[in-house]
Order: sequence, then C-alpha cells, then structure tokens
Amino acid sequence: MVLRIFGDTKSGNCLKVKWTAQHLHLPFEWIEVDILKSESRTPEFLAMNPAGQVPAVILDDGRALAQSNAIMLHLAEGSALIPTDAYDRARMFEWLFWEQYSHEPYVAVARFQVAYLGKPADSLDAKLVERGAAALARLEAQLATSPYLVGERLTLADIALVAYTRVAHEGGFDLSRYPAVKAWVGRVEAALDIQ
Amino acid sequence: MVLRIFGDTKSGNCLKVKWTAQHLHLPFEWIEVDILKSESRTPEFLAMNPAGQVPAVILDDGRALAQSNAIMLHLAEGSALIPTDAYDRARMFEWLFWEQYSHEPYVAVARFQVAYLGKPADSLDAKLVERGAAALARLEAQLATSPYLVGERLTLADIALVAYTRVAHEGGFDLSRYPAVKAWVGRVEAALDIQ
Repeated sequence: MVLRIFGDTKSGNCLKVKWTAQHLHLPFEWIEVDILKSESRTPEFLAMNPAGQVPAVILDDGRALAQSNAIMLHLAEGSALIPTDAYDRARMFEWLFWEQYSHEPYVAVARFQVAYLGKPADSLDAKLVERGAAALARLEAQLATSPYLVGERLTLADIALVAYTRVAHEGGFDLSRYPAVKAWVGRVEAALDIQ
Repeated sequence: MVLRIFGDTKSGNCLKVKWTAQHLHLPFEWIEVDILKSESRTPEFLAMNPAGQVPAVILDDGRALAQSNAIMLHLAEGSALIPTDAYDRARMFEWLFWEQYSHEPYVAVARFQVAYLGKPADSLDAKLVERGAAALARLEAQLATSPYLVGERLTLADIALVAYTRVAHEGGFDLSRYPAVKAWVGRVEAALDIQ
C-alpha cells in the first residue's frame, strides 16, 4: 500500500508533509480535503484522525498518523533532514515546537483570515499582527547568523517554518523588512524545488 | 557543570521538564523565574532564550535549549520514556505537537486567567472553554482504550499532557466529567511521584 496524504493544498501544514515526501522520493497519493467545506469533519475523516485536522496520513502499513510535524519526523527518520548530532537535533525540535506555538497561530492565521476569509489586512486583530511580526523578527535574528535554522544544512525545521513564512505577505506581512528571512525562503524553495 | 533549569513553578510547561529530570535521576539546579514579574524578559534571560519564554535550560556542556517538549526529548533520549518502536514514537510526537497546539492554548490559558489573573471562570472567553473541553474529551476517548496515551507504558506524551490536565479544575474544567482522564492523572502522578 502506498503512503496516502490527506491534505488541503491551501494549508502550509499539509504542504510540509508533501514537500518532505517529495524531497525524500517517497511515493505517495495525495487526497485533497477541503477544510472550508468541513471535509475534515466527516465521520470517515474523524475515524482516521479524531482531532478533525489536516494533514493526516495513512502509512504504507495501513496505520494512521496526524500532526504535520509528527508526520514529517516519521517520514524523515534516518534521513539527512534530521541532524545526527544530539544538540543540533534538539535545536531542530525547539524550532518545530516553536513553529506550532509561536509562529503558525499568528502568521498562518492572519493569512487565512485575509486570503481565505476575505478580511482586509488592516482590520486584523492587533495582537495577531504584533505576534506574527515578532515571530518573523525572531527568524530574521537567527537567519542573519546561519544559512538554515539549524546551522549549515537543510532540516525539518526549515521545511516547517518556510511553509507559512513564504506566504506571509498574503496575511499582510511585508517580507522585505526581513531580508535574511527572504533570502532563506529562496534557499529553501530551491532545495525543495517548489518555486 | 550541572544541568540548570530556568522555570516558573506556576507553569506546567516548566514542571514537565523538572519531572522528566527527576524521573530520570538527572542532577539539576532549578532557577525560579517569575513570569508575572517579567523575569523572562530581562536582557540576561533573552540572551539565553530569544523567545523570552520559560522553561529554558543550560545543559551540562553550557549550551542553551528552550521549548518544554524539545528539552524533555533531549533529556530523555535513549530512555524508556521514548518508545523504541517507530510507530509508537510517532504517536508520542503526535500527542506532543497536539498538546502545544490544541490543549495548552486552551486548558493552560483558562487556568492562568482564573488562577493567576483572578478572572472569574464564568467570564472566560466561550471559545477558550469550548476548545479546552474538546481537548479533554479527546484525551478521554484515548484513555478509555489504553492506560497511557501511547499504549501500555508511560512516555513523554503523558508527562506533557498531565502537566496542565491535572490542574484543569483551576481553570474551571470539571475533571469528574472525564473519568478515564482522572484515573490516568492519578496513574501518571504515581509514576512520577508528584501527588
């Protein structure tokens, strides 16, 4: 059985998983799930992922798995996308958890409200904008000192963080204010062949 | 140099790290950081963790690390708290990321607002209460079928999820509505010796 990825192409969380599979040359089938049509809330979907969120996958052995970063970690196990050095690996995890807690809830949510719910960027909640900008500034500080988030090589941290950062402008964030981030987005897109 | 944990005792995210170190018999020094007094925003603290969040640690080799779940993973590497089976390990990661995205922002935030900011529980934002209850219901569904979140044994998933679940009542959630969760809290507290 081939890996099946259930995802919404609008969602960076879903694209992360797709890009990881592509980069690792893992064969997979993509099943489009439209979250705006609540297709992740059907009884069939909830039987696979009780959290009712995309992405979710059915692995090649038939077992289900959810949470974008958990799926990426599972698919990439033993690959160069996960550092072998214990401290570098810990830093990668630090970025992965930070992404879900301090980046995605602001940068991705702002973009969703503007690009998909049609809210004008200047009417977004001020806290959302402020925290999104803080997340981008934190990336900028790191990427001014290293080409990738964990040193010299592409890791899952870059794939996870690039997903919504590369479309942050769709939520009203001006990436030209973050030149190191902008250069890194280009670098990661080239490495993933997703320009 | 001994492991130094910078944490606020009020914060479940910080206690997770402490419990993991204690459970693994790792010697450590605890440095109390009062978040209500903005002690995680001083220049000294930000030099260690630019995200300005607790917990953060200085490892025994002098290097810094942040994000509760990333720290736990690093401390527990090679221990029985991380399953050796690849799929079980992936499920543990699924719970760890779900915790930070779908549980902590509701269950922990409700408790913080009630117990530390003095907000009456019945004046909490309805979405906060609804999503916190949904998170507890999701735990209940899993724990009705297995003694721990990933099968038969204690893993980091249990330590991460118990931290705010065991004090959910301080945020107005009634744990007696979730009997399997309540029994699991007792089980994990006994395993960690933290009753």
